[in-house]
Formats: sequence, C-alpha cells, structure tokens
Amino acid sequence: MVLKRWLVGDPLKSTQAAHQRLSKTIALAIFSSNAISSVAYATEEILLVLVLAGTAAIAWSIPVSFAILFLIVILTISYRQIIYEYPDGGGAYVVARNNFGEQPALIGAAALMIDYVLTVAVSVAAGIAALTSAVPSLFEYRVALGLAAIIFMVVINLRGVRESGTFFAFPTYFGVGIIGIMVGIGSVQTFFGQAASLPPINPTTVEELTLFLILRTFAAGCTAVTGMEVVSNSVKAFRPPESRNASATMLHMSLILTALFMGITFLAYHAGIQPKTDETVISQLARLTFGTGALYYSLQIGTMLLLVLAANSAFAAFPQLASILARDGYMPRQMATFGDRLVFSNGIVVLGVIACFLLILFHGDTHALIPLYAIGVFISFTLSQAGMVRQWITKKGSHWRAKLIVNGVGAVTTGIALIIIATTKFTQGAWIVFLLISILVSMFRSIRSHYKAVAEQISLTRDHRPPLPRRNIVVIPINGVNKAVIRAVDYARSRPGEIHAVMVDVDPQSTARIQIQWAQWGCGVNLIALPSPYRSVLKSLLDYIEKILEKEPDIWVTVVIPEILPAHWWQSILHNQRALLLKTALLFTERVILTDVPFHLKR
Amino acid sequence: MVLKRWLVGDPLKSTQAAHQRLSKTIALAIFSSNAISSVAYATEEILLVLVLAGTAAIAWSIPVSFAILFLIVILTISYRQIIYEYPDGGGAYVVARNNFGEQPALIGAAALMIDYVLTVAVSVAAGIAALTSAVPSLFEYRVALGLAAIIFMVVINLRGVRESGTFFAFPTYFGVGIIGIMVGIGSVQTFFGQAASLPPINPTTVEELTLFLILRTFAAGCTAVTGMEVVSNSVKAFRPPESRNASATMLHMSLILTALFMGITFLAYHAGIQPKTDETVISQLARLTFGTGALYYSLQIGTMLLLVLAANSAFAAFPQLASILARDGYMPRQMATFGDRLVFSNGIVVLGVIACFLLILFHGDTHALIPLYAIGVFISFTLSQAGMVRQWITKKGSHWRAKLIVNGVGAVTTGIALIIIATTKFTQGAWIVFLLISILVSMFRSIRSHYKAVAEQISLTRDHRPPLPRRNIVVIPINGVNKAVIRAVDYARSRPGEIHAVMVDVDPQSTARIQIQWAQWGCGVNLIALPSPYRSVLKSLLDYIEKILEKEPDIWVTVVIPEILPAHWWQSILHNQRALLLKTALLFTERVILTDVPFHLKR
Repeated sequence: MVLKRWLVGDPLKSTQAAHQRLSKTIALAIFSSNAISSVAYATEEILLVLVLAGTAAIAWSIPVSFAILFLIVILTISYRQIIYEYPDGGGAYVVARNNFGEQPALIGAAALMIDYVLTVAVSVAAGIAALTSAVPSLFEYRVALGLAAIIFMVVINLRGVRESGTFFAFPTYFGVGIIGIMVGIGSVQTFFGQAASLPPINPTTVEELTLFLILRTFAAGCTAVTGMEVVSNSVKAFRPPESRNASATMLHMSLILTALFMGITFLAYHAGIQPKTDETVISQLARLTFGTGALYYSLQIGTMLLLVLAANSAFAAFPQLASILARDGYMPRQMATFGDRLVFSNGIVVLGVIACFLLILFHGDTHALIPLYAIGVFISFTLSQAGMVRQWITKKGSHWRAKLIVNGVGAVTTGIALIIIATTKFTQGAWIVFLLISILVSMFRSIRSHYKAVAEQISLTRDHRPPLPRRNIVVIPINGVNKAVIRAVDYARSRPGEIHAVMVDVDPQSTARIQIQWAQWGCGVNLIALPSPYRSVLKSLLDYIEKILEKEPDIWVTVVIPEILPAHWWQSILHNQRALLLKTALLFTERVILTDVPFHLKR
Repeated sequence: MVLKRWLVGDPLKSTQAAHQRLSKTIALAIFSSNAISSVAYATEEILLVLVLAGTAAIAWSIPVSFAILFLIVILTISYRQIIYEYPDGGGAYVVARNNFGEQPALIGAAALMIDYVLTVAVSVAAGIAALTSAVPSLFEYRVALGLAAIIFMVVINLRGVRESGTFFAFPTYFGVGIIGIMVGIGSVQTFFGQAASLPPINPTTVEELTLFLILRTFAAGCTAVTGMEVVSNSVKAFRPPESRNASATMLHMSLILTALFMGITFLAYHAGIQPKTDETVISQLARLTFGTGALYYSLQIGTMLLLVLAANSAFAAFPQLASILARDGYMPRQMATFGDRLVFSNGIVVLGVIACFLLILFHGDTHALIPLYAIGVFISFTLSQAGMVRQWITKKGSHWRAKLIVNGVGAVTTGIALIIIATTKFTQGAWIVFLLISILVSMFRSIRSHYKAVAEQISLTRDHRPPLPRRNIVVIPINGVNKAVIRAVDYARSRPGEIHAVMVDVDPQSTARIQIQWAQWGCGVNLIALPSPYRSVLKSLLDYIEKILEKEPDIWVTVVIPEILPAHWWQSILHNQRALLLKTALLFTERVILTDVPFHLKR
C-alpha cells in the first residue's frame, strides 16, 4: 500500500476529473508522438523492400513516399470530420457500432486493441534499437531495457493523465526538434550541393522490380501513418472546446509528420543510404549530416525518447477503449473501474503485461513485429471512414454531400491500402492478426453472453416475492478446547438461536477429556460427539450436517470454523488442512454457509 | 472421489486394524526385499572400485566380501536384541530419543528419512537397469519407466498394508528363487570345473592398490547391508507374538542375503567378470551360467521385480517414521493422520513425490545415487547400537552384560564402517547427505517450536474466564438489487439482531433506482448509502466498518458478502473482484468476521 502510494501518488477526488484535461501543447506531445515517431522506421522499411530489386530500384522510394503523403492528407481531412461528429471519442468501435451494428464494431475494437499493444511493443523495440545503434555494447540487454521502459511507463500512467503529460512533453518536443534540425541542415547541404553521400554499393538483386514489389514497398511505408487515429479517439481528454482543440492538434501533428517523413526519405535517397542490419537508416543519415559528435548522439537519444514515449499514447487509448467495451459488456467489468488516480488502472496494467510478453516473445526485434503492425490500424481506418459514409447518408445534415465525399474518398483510399497490406504481408505475419481478431471477437461475444446469462439468472421479476423468514442452525466443529475454539463459540452465540458444537469421537480418551473441559469453557453450548468408525472426521461431519438439512428442508445451516491463522504464510502448511477440506466439501451445498472465525497467532 | 475409491479401495474400519498384521511369509517378502535386493548392485560396486587398480586387484573382492559378511552377522545379532527391547518398532530415532535425548534422535530420524527416499530411488533405478540390460532398446525410457514404477507403488500402498503384502510376496520370492538357482548352478559348475569364464582383459591401471582404495572398496560393498534395519523398525506390523516373529524373519533374511551376496561375489571372481558400462555384473554372470535363454531373461525379470519391490519396504517404513515424528511435533500433523485405508496416506504420497524428483534429477542413474546411499543407513545403525549400549548400562536387567557386549561390538563395528564410508565417499556426494541431515534437523526443530508457540498462544489457563456475551452487527455491502443480494439478506436476518445493508453512492441516478427497488425487496432491512468522493467503493466500506467498531469497542461485526459463483471456474475472472478485495482488506481486522453467501449460477 505504502509502495503503491509512493509510486502512483495520493487518490484524487471525482470532482477533480475536469481539471485533468490537457492543453493543446501537452496533448500534441502525448497524442502525436505515436504518429510522428514512425518516421524512425518507416523510411527504413521502404528501403528494406526496394533494395531486394537492386540499387536502381531505390529511386522508387520517392513516388512511394508521395503516395503515403497522399494518405496522410486524406486521413487528416477525414478524421477532422470524425472529431467534430464524435466529441466523446470516436474510435473505429464507436463509429462502426453506431452505423453498422455489433459484428463490425467488435472487429474494429479487436483491431484497435491489437494495434495498441503492437504500438507499445514496436515503439519500445525501435526506441531501444536507436539506443543500441549509438551504443552497440547495450545490444545484448535490449529485451531487459525494453521491459524496464514498459514498466516505467505503466507506473507513470497509473499516476494519472495530466502528470504523465507534463512528464512526456519535453522529450517529445526534444525528439521532434532534433530530427527537424537534421532534416533542415541536410536540406540546406543538399540544396548547396555540399551534402556528403555514401559510395554506391551494388547489392545482389534478389527479386524483379514487379508491381507486387512496389505494392509491398507501399505497404511497408504505411507504417508511417500508424497512430494518426489517436487524437480522434481521445477528444474527451482535451480542454474545452474539445473538438476544436483536437482538430487543431491533429493538423499540427500531420504537418510535422509530413515534413519529417518526406525530409528523411528524400535525404536518405540523395545520400544513397541503404538499410544495414547493424545500424538504423536514421542513424546513418545523422552520421552523414552531423558527423559522429554531440549532435549525432542527441539525435539518437531524441529518437529513442520519442519512440519510447510514443508507446505512451497507447497507454491512454487502450484503457479508454477497454473501459468502453467493459461498459457495453464485452470486457470484464473491472476494466471500466476508474482507479483512485482517475485513470482506468486495470487497462494500463493489462496493456503493460501483454506488451512485455510480446517484447520477450519477439526478442525485442522491430522488424519481426512490424509486419503485424499496420493491419490493425488500417482495418480501423477503413471501418471509421465507411461508418462515416453511412452516417452522412442516413443522417444527412448541413453540407452532408461534401462531407460524404471527403469520408468516401477516405474509405476507398484506406480500404485499398488495407487490401494491399493484407495481400502483400499475409504470409509474413499478417495472418496472425486476422486470427487474433477472430479470437478476440468471439471472446467479446462470450463475455457479453455470460453477463447476459448472469443478469437473467439473478434478476428479480414481478412473479418473485420477498423470501419468508427462515431458521438458522449454527454448527461449530471442534477438535479440542482452546482459545481459538472459544472465540468461535463466543462469535456464534453473539446472535440468538440454536448452536451445536460437534466433535468427532476418534479416540474415547481425548473425547472424555474434551467433554470435561467443555463443561467449564463451552459457554453453555451443547456439545455433540459424533461416532466415526472410519476415522474420517470429514465424513462424520458431512453426514451430521446432511441429517440436519434433511430434517428441516427450509433452514439455513451456518458452519462456524475456528481457524488458526499463523503469523507467517509459510506456516500455513502446518495448520487448517481439515478446515480446508471441510470448506471444499461444503462449498457447493445449498443452504450451508461457511464462516471462518480466524484466531491470529502473534508468532 | 470415484477415481480414488477405484484406485485405493473402500474405507476400512478402525477395528479392522489388528487384522492387517502380516504373517511371517509375507513379512519376509515385504521387509527383506530391501536388504536382499542389494545383491544386485553390491558386488558390482566392489568391482568398480577394485578395477581401478588393475585386474590383479580384483582378487581383493574376496576378503572385502568376508568383512561385509562379518558386518551382516554382527548386525543380525544386535538387531535381534533391539527387536525384543522395542516391540513397538525401534528405529534409530526411537532408540536414540530414549537413550541420548533430542538432538541425536533427530539426527537419526533425518538419516533414516534420507535413507528411505534413497532406497526408493536407488532400487527403482537399479531395477530399471536390470530391465534395460536385457532389453537395451528401453534404455532411453528409463526415467519414464522408473516414474511409472514409483507411481504404481504409491497407489498399491495407499490401498493398505496387507493387500500390498500379498501383491508383493510372489515377485520377491520369484526373484530370490531365480538368483538362488543361478548361484546354485554356478557353484556346481565351478566345483566340477565346468564353469565358463571370460577371457582376461587388462584394464588400464588408474590408481595404486593402496589401503585407502581397499577401504573405499569396503565402503562400496557396504551397500549390501542397506535395508537390514527395516524389520526392527516394523515389529508392530507382525502378527503376535510380534517380537519372536520379527526376530525369526530377520534371521531368514540374513541367511538369504549372505548366501546370495557371497555366492555372486565368488562366482564373479572365478568367472573373471569385470564391470561394464552397458551391462550389470549380475547380467554378465547370468549369461555365462545360463546362456542368453529363457532362464537368463527370467533372472533379469526376477532381479528387476526384487529391486522395484525393495523400494516398497520404504513405503511402509517412511510413513511410519513420519507419523512418529508428527506425533512428537517434529513434522506437520497431517503426517500422523491414519487414512481411510488404515495407512498413513500423506507419508506415502510425500515419499513418492520426493523419490520421483530424485529419479529425474539423477536421470535414473544408479551409480550417481549410490554414494549418497549408505551414509544414512550407517548413521542410523551406529546410533541404534550405541543407544542400546547406553540402555543396558543404565537399565541393566537379566544377562545385561552379555547383551551389552553384543551391542557394543555392533556399535564399534558400524561406527568404524561409518567413518570409512564418510571419509572415502565424502567428496563423491556424501557431503550432500550431511548437509541434508542438518537442514532436516533444523526443520524438525522449527516445526516443533512453532507448534509449541501455537499451543502456548491458544491454551486456556485458570486465569481465563469464559467470555461474556457480545453484540453482533451484520453489514451487507450491496451494489444493486438482485437474487444474489436478496439471498444474502435472507440469510442475514435468519438470526435476530441489527442488520445494515450498505451501498456506496458512486452515481446518484443508480443510487436512487436501487433505493426504490429496496423498498420492495429489502425485507425491511435498513439501507444506507455511503458517500464516496474518491470513487473507491472499498475505502468507503472500510471507513464505515471502522466507525462501527470504534463506536462500540466490544461488538462483533459480520460482513455478509453476496457472492456470485459462476458455473465454470474460468468465468470467475468476470466476477467478485470487489468481494475479493474486501476480504483481503478485512482479513486481519480483529472483531470483523466475513461470511460469503454464494449464489450458484447454473450456466
């Protein structure tokens, strides 16, 4: 408890909730780090595919990056409309539920959840890769470093949304700033023809430069737009006027993303950079632009901070989505519980645990995780845009035709991108995502149908009448006379009614001794000695209780168990074995209620 | 439960206990298999050491075996005296406790326990080795086969002592008989000069034939006498007159052991057999004597059965010792519980589990286990004999001087053997045994001191008075009105007294709704809505209970928790999280008693 308070801070009042809203400056840091940080790996993913077709093919990175620029523009415009239409947060789940019904909504929710988990895993892995590019000796500790980063983020997020915002704002702006400086200096150098470039290498051509390969390149580059939906899911976290602030933030984010992504791709092409296994593209570019000095190391640190903090946006979005699903009955209810720091604590912890698991499973390798990444995002993009199309058609409203066209173009564009990504990456791991989505959807459905079944079973209808009063016989099984037993007797007689102390007669001598002691200590309670030909104390007791239940089919039986609780947990093996057996045997007996009366040992 | 009945049989009455005693014929099978089975590996262990000093050194196996014969004679005579003095079973623990006090007794007990566990592991490993000598293709499954054998024995022993006796008598006699036939035929062949023998091989001489090596040989051969104490520990299991029957059984056992051990050692020497890695000595000898035919295979099966069943004697002795220790407070009490088949079920299971663990740890390899084996036995031999010496000196009685000399010779002989074994095997693994003994002894002591502390804390003295009657306020936390809650209210009011239903007001709307429903269903119980500025349902409840406790420092508070029990265990994650937190928080609050009122879901 003390540890928890120290780590996450004192509880906050419900009325403080409104004050936890974010200013635009901090919101930009929190929600844009996800999208912007993808510049750290998007260009590299593009080059990694193109290089398969030889050095000449690398020129294709320019048209591909323009295609992605087009995507960014489309997404920015169409998401601004969603932000205004869904001021409570319009994730794919909400939009699809309102316009298409349950099944598409659940698919959207599952896609988003997988996407959030992968955001954490991919961003942390890439952030640690930035660190190990600069300090190769840390390479062998990358999984441990990644886990430490995730645990740190869980703690920070459990502290609550505003504090973590302040905490993350500086590093995000530092990362964006230093990458911006590199792009700026690099552009000036290139413009004046002073830019350094690498000697051309001729890698072995592995594949033909086919249309399929170019589409694969486009699919790889689509990782650049991951995270663009984050702002629209989190409109509620902004200060009023929420929608306007969110929309402005979204625009700023898109501009920064475009500048950095296009800049890096151009510079990398002009410098003739090719992907290497032991160094990231951005690290090579920084070495060429800055030389390996203080600025280079600042850039690596900035990239790392940006990436590790990008994971943080998922820590805001995932618990929010989980809580919406929980409120609708598709997730365990405790996901909707607001913690005492005004955050959905359970969702934060669950996300942290799954991301740690993924990081260990994929050995902290970015390239292994990335093929799984973009699918979920584009499923949710497409569902949101298509949902908006349907909404404009049914709801209409002012300028609905223009808005329909905007979202229509968005839906078609993201839909085509989704098909391209799914087709070209299917065998590389995308199939896992489709499998996981179907598993998650059926999990959502079975949780919901369970809660529905429970509600039907426990709900009171008009046919029911309040129950009539019933008797309650208390049974206290004892095996001796001591303070623990007397405490149980004292408790049992604190409410009037019939009490039977029962003992099992295993050894006549000790039975006689207990009966004598009982006369003094038993508080006047009746003591019954049960015969036990088979020495099974348990069986004799169960038979006795069975008989009481049979005789009066309408009473309660309370079994009051005197239990000795040791001072240390490991001592429990020396105690209460019989109490445990008794409890297990009686747990499913209707009308029998168990009550432990613990006697706490001091040593 | 049904599975348990089918495996271990129906419960037996206490009065049937006397009938479970063993006849001499069956007792010989049960208790002698341990000692006699050691002929399967004792000769081999002797040869394994001697062969280090070259072929010529093997001649030393004859004098060494005579030294061991001397040990057998001494042990037989001195243990007969213990059998008469301790008709209730005189293990090292009992004898040392009566004559030396606690510490030596616990050392004896620890040594015996380790010895029993090793008996199971070594015998099963050697038994499986006999099988795999004959059928080499089974070699890779030896650990699995060993585990299956141990589990089989656990089940058989849980069925009870007489049935397992009958079950084991035939294979034991079959094993003894077939080895006897081999020794007989081999001796006749040797006498008439017709015995086959192996061509002499000259192994590399690794060590000088020093006195130390000969002592090591003797130590290795001492494994032949392991198990000789079993009869004296189990006098109670014999039919009356117990001591006389046990004594006669002991004599028969020693005669069989001597004949087989000396016979095998002589024949192996005459045939020029040297230990091989892939075949046991006894298997080589059998091939020479019988040829590789039906008789050879019978002998291997007989040896295997004898060895695997030898482990069974530990399944009678270990639980008996554990129950004596438990009765004296040195082991958890449930070790002294007679199961419903009149055996100490817990001890049998514990022994089985530890032996399986050892078998896995040592990959089922006899030679790896054997250095640990003899130490425990000889510690218990020495303690028993020395204890008897002290007993004769203090107690005297008829012929005490003669008896003193017998046990004195026994004590000195086994003491010297113990020193030799400990010295020569210390680095090979004997140190583990000394370490384990000291760990076990301190475990015994801390268990005892815990039980003593418990007894002091719960015992009632004359200063105490029976408690005065106290009030009991029932608190029912609710978060809605449904069948589960109404069931809890129905239970709570089944005994007269004050009842408060409490709810935490998190959302004013739902609070109002619940209050309206309560008017209809609440059975007239008072409903209190607690404010909760921090949304922590738990904290509000705890504060409320705290207040009640403070106001009346002498009452009980019963918290009746309506709990929904799902139909399937994996559904529990969807329920009762708050109930669990509440229970954890209240477990250590004095005067607060928790009562779950389960509502069982059907689907």
